[in-house]
Amino acid sequence: MSEEQANIGVVGLAAMGASLSRNLAHHGNTVAVYNRHYSRTEALIAEHGSEGAFIPAKTVEEFVSSLAKPRTAIIMVKAGAPTDAVINELADAMEPGDIIVDGGNAYFEDTIRREKDIRARGLHFVGCGISGGEEGALKGPSMMPGGTDESWKTLGPILKSIAAVAEGEPCVTHIGTDGAGHFVKMVHNGIEYADMQVIAESYDLLRRGLGMEPSEIAEVFAEWNKGDLNSYLIEITAEVLGHKDAKTGKPFVDIVVDQAGMKGTGTWTVQTALSLGTPVTGIGEAVFARGLSSEAALRDEAASKGLEGPDPEGAFAEALKDDESRKAFIEDVRQALYASKIVAYAQGFNEIEKGAKQYGWDIDLGAVARIWRGGCIIRAKFLNRISDAYDSSETFGSLLFDPFFKDAVAKAQTSWRRVVSKAAEAGVPVPMFSSSLAYYDGLRSKRLPAALIQGQRDLFGAHTYFRVDESGAFHTLWAEPGQKEIEQG
Amino acid sequence: MSEEQANIGVVGLAAMGASLSRNLAHHGNTVAVYNRHYSRTEALIAEHGSEGAFIPAKTVEEFVSSLAKPRTAIIMVKAGAPTDAVINELADAMEPGDIIVDGGNAYFEDTIRREKDIRARGLHFVGCGISGGEEGALKGPSMMPGGTDESWKTLGPILKSIAAVAEGEPCVTHIGTDGAGHFVKMVHNGIEYADMQVIAESYDLLRRGLGMEPSEIAEVFAEWNKGDLNSYLIEITAEVLGHKDAKTGKPFVDIVVDQAGMKGTGTWTVQTALSLGTPVTGIGEAVFARGLSSEAALRDEAASKGLEGPDPEGAFAEALKDDESRKAFIEDVRQALYASKIVAYAQGFNEIEKGAKQYGWDIDLGAVARIWRGGCIIRAKFLNRISDAYDSSETFGSLLFDPFFKDAVAKAQTSWRRVVSKAAEAGVPVPMFSSSLAYYDGLRSKRLPAALIQGQRDLFGAHTYFRVDESGAFHTLWAEPGQKEIEQG
Repeated sequence: MSEEQANIGVVGLAAMGASLSRNLAHHGNTVAVYNRHYSRTEALIAEHGSEGAFIPAKTVEEFVSSLAKPRTAIIMVKAGAPTDAVINELADAMEPGDIIVDGGNAYFEDTIRREKDIRARGLHFVGCGISGGEEGALKGPSMMPGGTDESWKTLGPILKSIAAVAEGEPCVTHIGTDGAGHFVKMVHNGIEYADMQVIAESYDLLRRGLGMEPSEIAEVFAEWNKGDLNSYLIEITAEVLGHKDAKTGKPFVDIVVDQAGMKGTGTWTVQTALSLGTPVTGIGEAVFARGLSSEAALRDEAASKGLEGPDPEGAFAEALKDDESRKAFIEDVRQALYASKIVAYAQGFNEIEKGAKQYGWDIDLGAVARIWRGGCIIRAKFLNRISDAYDSSETFGSLLFDPFFKDAVAKAQTSWRRVVSKAAEAGVPVPMFSSSLAYYDGLRSKRLPAALIQGQRDLFGAHTYFRVDESGAFHTLWAEPGQKEIEQG
Repeated sequence: MSEEQANIGVVGLAAMGASLSRNLAHHGNTVAVYNRHYSRTEALIAEHGSEGAFIPAKTVEEFVSSLAKPRTAIIMVKAGAPTDAVINELADAMEPGDIIVDGGNAYFEDTIRREKDIRARGLHFVGCGISGGEEGALKGPSMMPGGTDESWKTLGPILKSIAAVAEGEPCVTHIGTDGAGHFVKMVHNGIEYADMQVIAESYDLLRRGLGMEPSEIAEVFAEWNKGDLNSYLIEITAEVLGHKDAKTGKPFVDIVVDQAGMKGTGTWTVQTALSLGTPVTGIGEAVFARGLSSEAALRDEAASKGLEGPDPEGAFAEALKDDESRKAFIEDVRQALYASKIVAYAQGFNEIEKGAKQYGWDIDLGAVARIWRGGCIIRAKFLNRISDAYDSSETFGSLLFDPFFKDAVAKAQTSWRRVVSKAAEAGVPVPMFSSSLAYYDGLRSKRLPAALIQGQRDLFGAHTYFRVDESGAFHTLWAEPGQKEIEQG
């Protein structure tokens, strides 16, 4: 066995694990690598062994003994049972003080459970969200590690060496204890769904509503990318829309089946928000919109039944024929996108706040926004504004209260309303635009009709209600003459 | 010990359990009753012992030995750990072939687990959803039992004896095996949330938007209750809105704090739908709207910040001053309520269908609609139409495809669009109206912008896509010159 020891190890050398190993090696780390089937390890060394210092291992024992203490290993295998299996193998071979990192997309409650188990064995367990896909893993991801402060002392410098860099800062920070990192990564993905859905709704309005060609809409997105909306997702939208299918010469977007897939983190974000009682209506609508798109049989049946409604095709084309009114409508759509996006981020950050409170994490929301500025799918200039907002005050409440975003929505809201209004009349579905607007209008309502709901609940279920003018829980004797209100214990 | 034996027993004699026991006794059953603290049993016998045949028991053993075989006991205790404790006590004292019924609001996955455990011990376990609150339990609830066919043979006649009766039929049917009953009860509650939310949005439009007084709106609801919307919830809405607070003389709805509470079944409905991948956008928005209403600190902060937007107070009052246009607007709101309600039911029934498929239940959707016609909170004439719809075809797809509902929405949709459109412009939040409309328009869209989302996903994550003109999964080499499409394995 070699005398040389590795300061970091990677278990699992599929696309993500191999890329992360190479990234580590590129930045001066000595990287122990292990894969269940050795052929993959051999392939990595054969193709990329010259890129840096690798120590290939044939067994877990060999892998562990090639690591310098405290031994630090990042697991990059499938979430669920395979992850549990590798964690146990490593924990058996490691010693107290060593650090096991799960770099997969684990559900944060699994991470909390695993951290507890591994801590009881005297080792550190770090659930680390890694965003940016294969390319990010290779060239610089955004990373969200949880775990103990002690593990961060060892792991921090290593992760900083390979993270994306945004405005001179590495896109990694210690999020909080146990499941905090995977929680924040989950919400990141939920926000990504919302970001993509507002883009999709904008495209639909311009494509079907205005009758524009994909290549023309690509130019609109390229233009938008120069302003407030500047972001990776807007940039690649222009690229996708501008692309022509090599085989048919048709716009690429027209040859793709219109059923959006998903892998579960968006779903988790909404389910978790429901458990925490925090509304994430935008992300919810985005997840449901993907779900509806994939209901092929239902949509075919709907098409054959001919459900009544206006035809969105060219719905705005006639009224917006002249250049000026077209431009004004396109600007309205841009504002609707921007405002809905702000609401989605506000809701997502509120979910992180609620989660932190529920699970006892001390999460710096400004730092979260900063590490999302590079390396991940939702990277955007916009996130500087969010970090500024959260850095400026500790008890913040909502991004929508921050002067910058408050002002942005104030400027956007007339356009936003116009778009939702016109879309409803024209039959273009804009679930996120309208849901986000309803949230905004609900939030700013002095009185909500929830008082009526409390009245109904008291009448049919004696659930009681609070009064605006007196403390205590009250119940009305609905069935009795006089229907007196009585105070409940 | 008495020679007399009971054909049914009830464990847990709080409000619901006591009412159910009395209902059983009123209908010729001999009812063994047991409560952890005997004082409650004594109180029931002292106050209501003369209403029928009760056999009070001091211990679980005494309770079990007073039951005729197959012993059948309904548990009416708190969901969660208390339920598990009672189940185990009963199972220990019972014999193979006996039947344990959980009449609480258990999560269906707990019911599946319990059924499996109890079945392994040779007993039957029935998770039975019971709707209608205390009054329903006493006078006739709607009941949704799961469990084996064999248990239904014994339990069916007993439940039929105490169920609400709608159009001559008892509001109980054997839903399916293990957790099917609690699953259907869960979705029932989710639909109840949606039903209450569309009423709340209608009220808000008339109250704030048109500036009508609660007593005037009460008349509107009383009128609506005579038509398509005829239902218990519309009826009690008129009652709540017409009620004056005894202490202040003000409209009752104005003295109630506008924060709607909830107990978790609505949340479960949405979380489960997310797991099943079936969109329940209406129920989702209803649950989130309650959540937002209860965010007191956030709403106070929003009020103090003065988020920009139109003042909904009297927003429509000026334009709709004359009687005719007011009437037309109120009719538009009624149609919007009706259409949104149909969408929410369509989504809820789709969730039941998906759940049945996922968990292997053979659920008769027409029968589900029939047993909701009486005894429960969402009871309504409307449910006859749903049972007709599901009875008419087996592979149905969506309520929205049934001729009756398709036609109803076709008639309503212009009004519905007008309301969503005006509400967006006026700043009245209508999350369910707009979300349901977006679902409807999404469902009837021939092409959705989900194709763009698939393109984005392929570009940033190599997630691949399907083509409209060829089978197989494809990936585009986005980063390479020429950006060729290649088929993936």
